[in-house]
Amino acid sequence: MAAERIVTAAVVIIGNEILSGRTQDVNLAYLGQQLNALGIRLREGRIVADVEDEIVAAVNELRRRYTYVFTTGGIGPTHDDITSESVAKAFGVKLIRHPEAERRLREHYGPERINEARLRMADMPQGAELIDNPVSIAPGYQIGNVFVLAGVPAIMRAMFDSLKHRLVGGAPVLSISISTRLAEGTIAEGLGALQKRYPELDIGSYPFFRGDRFGTTLVLRGIDAAMLSQAAQELRDLIRALGAAPLDEEPD
Amino acid sequence: MAAERIVTAAVVIIGNEILSGRTQDVNLAYLGQQLNALGIRLREGRIVADVEDEIVAAVNELRRRYTYVFTTGGIGPTHDDITSESVAKAFGVKLIRHPEAERRLREHYGPERINEARLRMADMPQGAELIDNPVSIAPGYQIGNVFVLAGVPAIMRAMFDSLKHRLVGGAPVLSISISTRLAEGTIAEGLGALQKRYPELDIGSYPFFRGDRFGTTLVLRGIDAAMLSQAAQELRDLIRALGAAPLDEEPD
Repeated sequence: MAAERIVTAAVVIIGNEILSGRTQDVNLAYLGQQLNALGIRLREGRIVADVEDEIVAAVNELRRRYTYVFTTGGIGPTHDDITSESVAKAFGVKLIRHPEAERRLREHYGPERINEARLRMADMPQGAELIDNPVSIAPGYQIGNVFVLAGVPAIMRAMFDSLKHRLVGGAPVLSISISTRLAEGTIAEGLGALQKRYPELDIGSYPFFRGDRFGTTLVLRGIDAAMLSQAAQELRDLIRALGAAPLDEEPD
Repeated sequence: MAAERIVTAAVVIIGNEILSGRTQDVNLAYLGQQLNALGIRLREGRIVADVEDEIVAAVNELRRRYTYVFTTGGIGPTHDDITSESVAKAFGVKLIRHPEAERRLREHYGPERINEARLRMADMPQGAELIDNPVSIAPGYQIGNVFVLAGVPAIMRAMFDSLKHRLVGGAPVLSISISTRLAEGTIAEGLGALQKRYPELDIGSYPFFRGDRFGTTLVLRGIDAAMLSQAAQELRDLIRALGAAPLDEEPD
């Protein structure tokens, strides 16, 4: 098999409201799934406060380590929205008012409702390339390998749709899930041996609890479909050898 | 006012299943809320893969920066559960079989069901102090300022209840939330001025969308109740001056 290019990503979730537990983040899981479908592996996430030094440090560390970085949150019109200043600082460039972003905001709000706070949403690091926002107009942007997105999930998703043609993926990661009523501790030994036989695959074990029903979902992930299928067959045989039935889905 | 001790925390969420989007993390928001109630500020979160070097690096960086660190995930019986080996490595101590943890596991599973995979759940860094797990017995543990917890939310929450008497909190953070139908961009200027007048408070602005209803929730947070109450009154006046009504809750 030809060596496949591994493409990686990290997500930086920016916002005190996530850390205080006021808001449940749902963007990381969404980005993980979407990137996976494009052959990009989400390798790390960071949740940082609305503090410039923290955002600068996270963006700079992660943009060097991963192919792509996505930030969510902190690009609105209020004083606690400091992502753009921070990203400009991380890249060592000026924060400028982006003419096309300004044009879109002026057109959307009209002369009556445009104001300096809203125009701040057009302030971006020099060199930023806009990402369309069909939901609420104020654009996200890309600078280098960093994509700066809104935190509101509906807007973040629309922005991701607008940018995903720019991403160059690697080999797609395929997966097979097999569930069983066996407890993790019962299947652990055989599963560990299976992982040793297939070091190129990533085999995960996740217990589930549904009231009085419990069991384990095993997820095999890899880029070689034939190898994945063969390992899945061995896993089904292992489950049967332990006296249980392999299920293709988690029982309700 | 006397200087108050600031107590901080970080959370490390360990698991490929969170990064792939298979599993939605809900532990960070829970810990953020619980810690807040104890006067401990959750300052940072990291989501790392099931990779030893990544776990070691995150634990070592965060335990030096924050008063407390909580890890979730990776302490089950299967080959992909590598948190304990990683935490031992982070602290530079041996991984040993904890006698009391082993006793609990043997008693719970009985001679028929105990096996080497399940006994691995008793392997902990030397010096670990157990955290009770009333749900599924296998304990979590504390080493230094690091608390190692399960990833399954029901178990993580039970473990948190078991350990929270060990935490020494600081001044509790109080908060007042005020909502309005005003858009963020309309209130941004006055809100920024309010934040400047009250630098000791943390004022956050969060837009909400409920079908065709939208508006903004403003959250004021701080440790001085009188100051908070005064700032909240000024915020209500600001909202009225802009022609809207301050609401104590987000409209349905």
